[in-house]
Amino acid sequence: MNLADAHIAIVGMGLMGASLGYDLQGYCRRVTGVVRRPEAVEEAVLAGCVNDATLDARATVAEADLVVLATPVRTVLRQIAELGPHLRPGGILLDMGSTKGQICGAMAGLPDHVQGMGGHPMCGKEQAGISAAEAGLYKNCTFVLCPLPRTTVETQTLVNELVQFIGAQALVVEPERHDRLVAAISHLPYLTACALVAHVVAVAEEDAVVWDVAASGFRDSSRVAASDVRMLMDILLTNRKAVLDAIEDYQGRLAVLHDRLENADEAELGILLGEIAGARRGWRLHYS
Amino acid sequence: MNLADAHIAIVGMGLMGASLGYDLQGYCRRVTGVVRRPEAVEEAVLAGCVNDATLDARATVAEADLVVLATPVRTVLRQIAELGPHLRPGGILLDMGSTKGQICGAMAGLPDHVQGMGGHPMCGKEQAGISAAEAGLYKNCTFVLCPLPRTTVETQTLVNELVQFIGAQALVVEPERHDRLVAAISHLPYLTACALVAHVVAVAEEDAVVWDVAASGFRDSSRVAASDVRMLMDILLTNRKAVLDAIEDYQGRLAVLHDRLENADEAELGILLGEIAGARRGWRLHYS
Repeated sequence: MNLADAHIAIVGMGLMGASLGYDLQGYCRRVTGVVRRPEAVEEAVLAGCVNDATLDARATVAEADLVVLATPVRTVLRQIAELGPHLRPGGILLDMGSTKGQICGAMAGLPDHVQGMGGHPMCGKEQAGISAAEAGLYKNCTFVLCPLPRTTVETQTLVNELVQFIGAQALVVEPERHDRLVAAISHLPYLTACALVAHVVAVAEEDAVVWDVAASGFRDSSRVAASDVRMLMDILLTNRKAVLDAIEDYQGRLAVLHDRLENADEAELGILLGEIAGARRGWRLHYS
Repeated sequence: MNLADAHIAIVGMGLMGASLGYDLQGYCRRVTGVVRRPEAVEEAVLAGCVNDATLDARATVAEADLVVLATPVRTVLRQIAELGPHLRPGGILLDMGSTKGQICGAMAGLPDHVQGMGGHPMCGKEQAGISAAEAGLYKNCTFVLCPLPRTTVETQTLVNELVQFIGAQALVVEPERHDRLVAAISHLPYLTACALVAHVVAVAEEDAVVWDVAASGFRDSSRVAASDVRMLMDILLTNRKAVLDAIEDYQGRLAVLHDRLENADEAELGILLGEIAGARRGWRLHYS
């Protein structure tokens, strides 16, 4: 099956689901949005990100060729169990959850007639919801894919076509390895940004002028602290061990910086900060 | 004296000095760039950010109406002592250094015939040097001003006119208070970003794919770690006590997040993260 001939069901019309809808609608045979709130049916249709929308998840996943779960991680876990068995024979279940270990574990329990594939597009923004959705959100992002041992070549081909069509780069990674990597570059930065905001809030209680002097450095360093808390709670709680390990390693590295500054160990501090600046500058050019 | 009639000498043609030159040149009677490297004389003139440039700091500050020190903090400290006494009677010395306690302390030692004013525009970017300079860099930024006890109204009026002309908002703050506030929103975020990059570098030593999955969250959270190290070393070492205090408070707040996650204390973790997200979202709109 080609992507153009496919009926896609997107479960969840938030930032990720609706943005995917904008990209696929008009190209795929049909894009159906599955929502939970009755008002959201009309919202999704009027937004133009789907051909049609419905509350009836079971009937929709039974018809669709490819079902994309675009919900928070623990909702994905529940939907794999609740909706997975209702897919048509050969139907594909792809998720876009931000952690992959528990999700791919749940997918391993899908009935034999259903194809499963874990996915995680490495993009997003701190605004949530259909109003923040946009065509092209996935352009140039890395789209992690975690096939199951029994995922067929046909399934992988269709999912790859989708990834390519939305302008993303597929990267096949094992679920546990994915979770360790995103703990470092996504979940840890969220918590360090939260601790930073918590510090500034405490300073502001004594002296509110701190908000007036805060500028682009604070803005960027703290941006992800404004992320959707429900989504992040699911992420943290399904990747707890890797996130705790990352925090602990980070705490050690911050303590080194603290101690070199405390000792006014100028040569050693300068060498370390220079290495760090070089590493950050050497990171992929289009992200600098 | 009006800004338009003034001869401005800008000492240091880096990002901040050259950007100020772009804004003032053509409006002020004359803008002279003072540089250290012989090649930089021609660079500054060809860049178009000054009317003329020179290596001769002493002769220039003796002629100028307003001398702006746009150099790293510890160079500012040296230049206050070396150049300050050579200003013409009534000449104004303004600096743009990122910490103010030691600088305003040094300015208090200026001869009576020189007017001094501490300044800190809350803007910048991680790129350094004249090639990164741009007109309008100061637009909409907060420009902290620290007048000395003997700074005249006339001096304050001219400096305010300059701040207004470049589109910034003047904010008068005592030097020590300034240093505590910027420790929270600028110096701490620099070090937390550095610790984050150091963590990812360590992860990358085991698994370099981490750089491929890093996306906008890591990009923004770590951006300031690529800042000019020489400039930052001066900042950290002249604001050591406030920065160490900020790190220690931050470490406590990160430890709370760690412990709530470790205990899977979902209700308590959610409340805290929700408060933090709300505080970050409530910050000034134009910085969101």
